[in-house]
Amino acid sequence: MPLVLRKASLPAARRLYSASAAAGLRINADRLQETIHHTCQWGAAHRYGSGPAETGMSRLSLSDDDAQVRRWFAEETKKLGCNLVVDNLGNMFASRRGSLPNPTPMIAMGSHLDTQPRGGRYDGILGVVAAVEVLRTLAENGYSTHHDVGVVNWTNEEGARFPKSMMASGVWAGKIPLDQAYSLPDIFDPSATVKSELQRLGYIGDVACSSAGHPLGAHFELHIEQGPILEESGKKIGVVQGGQAYRWFTVTVSGRDAHTGTTPFKSRSDPLLAASKMIVSSNAIAKKLGALASTGVVKIPPSSSTNTIASQVTFTLDIRHPDDAIVDEVQRLCTESFGVIAKEDGRGVQVDMSLDTDSPATKFDPDCIKMVEKAATKLVGADGWLHITSGAGHDSVNTSSRCPTTMIFVPCKNGVSHHPEEYCSPEDCALGAQTLLEAVINYDKFKAGQ
Amino acid sequence: MPLVLRKASLPAARRLYSASAAAGLRINADRLQETIHHTCQWGAAHRYGSGPAETGMSRLSLSDDDAQVRRWFAEETKKLGCNLVVDNLGNMFASRRGSLPNPTPMIAMGSHLDTQPRGGRYDGILGVVAAVEVLRTLAENGYSTHHDVGVVNWTNEEGARFPKSMMASGVWAGKIPLDQAYSLPDIFDPSATVKSELQRLGYIGDVACSSAGHPLGAHFELHIEQGPILEESGKKIGVVQGGQAYRWFTVTVSGRDAHTGTTPFKSRSDPLLAASKMIVSSNAIAKKLGALASTGVVKIPPSSSTNTIASQVTFTLDIRHPDDAIVDEVQRLCTESFGVIAKEDGRGVQVDMSLDTDSPATKFDPDCIKMVEKAATKLVGADGWLHITSGAGHDSVNTSSRCPTTMIFVPCKNGVSHHPEEYCSPEDCALGAQTLLEAVINYDKFKAGQ
Repeated sequence: MPLVLRKASLPAARRLYSASAAAGLRINADRLQETIHHTCQWGAAHRYGSGPAETGMSRLSLSDDDAQVRRWFAEETKKLGCNLVVDNLGNMFASRRGSLPNPTPMIAMGSHLDTQPRGGRYDGILGVVAAVEVLRTLAENGYSTHHDVGVVNWTNEEGARFPKSMMASGVWAGKIPLDQAYSLPDIFDPSATVKSELQRLGYIGDVACSSAGHPLGAHFELHIEQGPILEESGKKIGVVQGGQAYRWFTVTVSGRDAHTGTTPFKSRSDPLLAASKMIVSSNAIAKKLGALASTGVVKIPPSSSTNTIASQVTFTLDIRHPDDAIVDEVQRLCTESFGVIAKEDGRGVQVDMSLDTDSPATKFDPDCIKMVEKAATKLVGADGWLHITSGAGHDSVNTSSRCPTTMIFVPCKNGVSHHPEEYCSPEDCALGAQTLLEAVINYDKFKAGQ
Repeated sequence: MPLVLRKASLPAARRLYSASAAAGLRINADRLQETIHHTCQWGAAHRYGSGPAETGMSRLSLSDDDAQVRRWFAEETKKLGCNLVVDNLGNMFASRRGSLPNPTPMIAMGSHLDTQPRGGRYDGILGVVAAVEVLRTLAENGYSTHHDVGVVNWTNEEGARFPKSMMASGVWAGKIPLDQAYSLPDIFDPSATVKSELQRLGYIGDVACSSAGHPLGAHFELHIEQGPILEESGKKIGVVQGGQAYRWFTVTVSGRDAHTGTTPFKSRSDPLLAASKMIVSSNAIAKKLGALASTGVVKIPPSSSTNTIASQVTFTLDIRHPDDAIVDEVQRLCTESFGVIAKEDGRGVQVDMSLDTDSPATKFDPDCIKMVEKAATKLVGADGWLHITSGAGHDSVNTSSRCPTTMIFVPCKNGVSHHPEEYCSPEDCALGAQTLLEAVINYDKFKAGQ
């Protein structure tokens, strides 16, 4: 279904939460949609339909398009009376003063405005634009929070142009050295680096990119799910418990090339047969433990042919679970199983498993989670939302090591993301923004009452 | 072990069969070796050791190197008193008159002098050179056969330069139209065709390339096994029963690309998991039926990545068995199994299986086989040889549809062929040539006695 902006479809969505809006505050669903698509003029690409919003996005970090949407962000938040801080990695922190006498580390609503080269209109963008809509709603209702509340636009979350995803939140959290981020080259034009592009665009601020340089009181991130769980279960809000652990392996299976017609099974050393068994086995192991194990890439030598046993096969293995111990166990059982499989057929094969990435599980903050649960229950009832664990990486995974953090997921069509046709309905965008608003207000009240 | 020509190693081999040589005829093992490597001066390539014969071969059909070895063949067989016929596809038939008053369709010893671009010194070459050695042995002993006996050098058996393997024997047997063969282009330089290269080298003869134009009384082919069966079983001679049937399929499994971290198993349509199960299943099915099923190639979209389920996977499936009915059954069970697997995981996948090549089983001539068995038993004892089915294609598979045919296999090191280091020991080459000599004499006597 192509995205067509029909005003007629919005009142129903607004009714969904209007009765229960916190302190009578109600985000403007129409304005949210208009703002999303207004900002998507910078970097619109990959048209897939004739409607005005029927394109995806290509707004790479620190490109000219990114600079333009950053300018919009700066102007828009200044109009709302925010104070804008840009740190020395180009992260933009726009904060609105709370009523407490001294400024506090702001309760942040954060996400990113950069996209994949063939991305859509919702990943990252929704989180920032919805946060701006929250600030607008607070401002136009004259609502005063206790603490400072604001929006962060994190630099280079996608890692598509400069190959390090969640880059700037990683530097802020102390996981990535600033110099390493600065020196990342554009993957197509190595003469441009993060630092040279920040300089070119005038986005190196005075404040250090770190949780000490610019601390945050909390971090709430609204994001499309990027998977099908909410849509398939008919739920409207995902209350995110954390980011699952994942480990990526390259498995290399070595055998001996041989003629398929003249070599009996017992004389073969067939790495493709063994690799196939390993892929099947890893799936069964993960299924049994409630984890995920996936193979996305299989490579054979380019000289392979129909009637020749391949000499070597490599495949990727991606193991995920919210609990590190389960990832450990899946890895252990896969290693064990691969060893058995390697000996099973003919003369056997050699197998080598190398760890490429190890990302431990993240547990989000129980108080933040409680505030989102409360907001979601008010808006869609206790049956309308579910607990969910993020399968993908997000800036929130980084911020959670330095400040109380959680995320709010909204459904996306068919679970598709990182694709031009990525889509979240106007109703779900609005519901997500309203949940964000109420969760932040809940948290502000909760912290003030402590 | 590199090939080193050591004369010292040869007497033992000659003793192996000298006592039992037919009619006292004994091929000259040293001369056979010298001739093999003499002819390999044309097209020697891919050095892998420092010895004079430690290279492989690159003698593509109708190349200048091929023209030179053809000239050697013509001169050598003429020296032996043979009559040389070249047909209009460049096949060379050198025949030595028998004692019967009228010339008879010759009992041929055939193979080919062309090689793969990265081939070795034994595939095809051994069959032709050993046949010349048989003629030399007959001539120097003044041995007169009843029927005409001779050697064929078939054009473009490898199909490496002009992409149609067993080309000229296929035309001779009426399986490939002459014009189709003529118009085959060089795979790297399409301006050169089989016909233009035959014309350039002066190898278009007057005789039609067909079993009517130049009939044969029988066809015996000595060849390295190209597999490990003889070596592993410690047998010296394979008495070939026929060529096994083979069918090649391309299996296309279509699913949906999705994020490995955010997509639960039940929501996936994972073609790589399904393809892996299919490869494993085809192997189990073939094993149960004593057949072969092999996958040499797996392809995924080039955009595939570690954390993305692939959208489509294609793999090749090569099914083989000496009996067409078993190949049918393996195909049927694979189709059935693939259909079940396609529905097994998550949302299932689509599977399509297309037949690319269908080559029915060939049964060689029982009389020819008997004559080889008799020769082999004399030379190495009843325990020294075994029945074997050819897994690869050979000119004999074509000739067998038009004249009584069989083949003799000798071991090759590690079962390796189509490789520069392809190797058959001087002893085994000599034993193969002696078996060829005796089988042909047996057959000549048998036919004369009928």
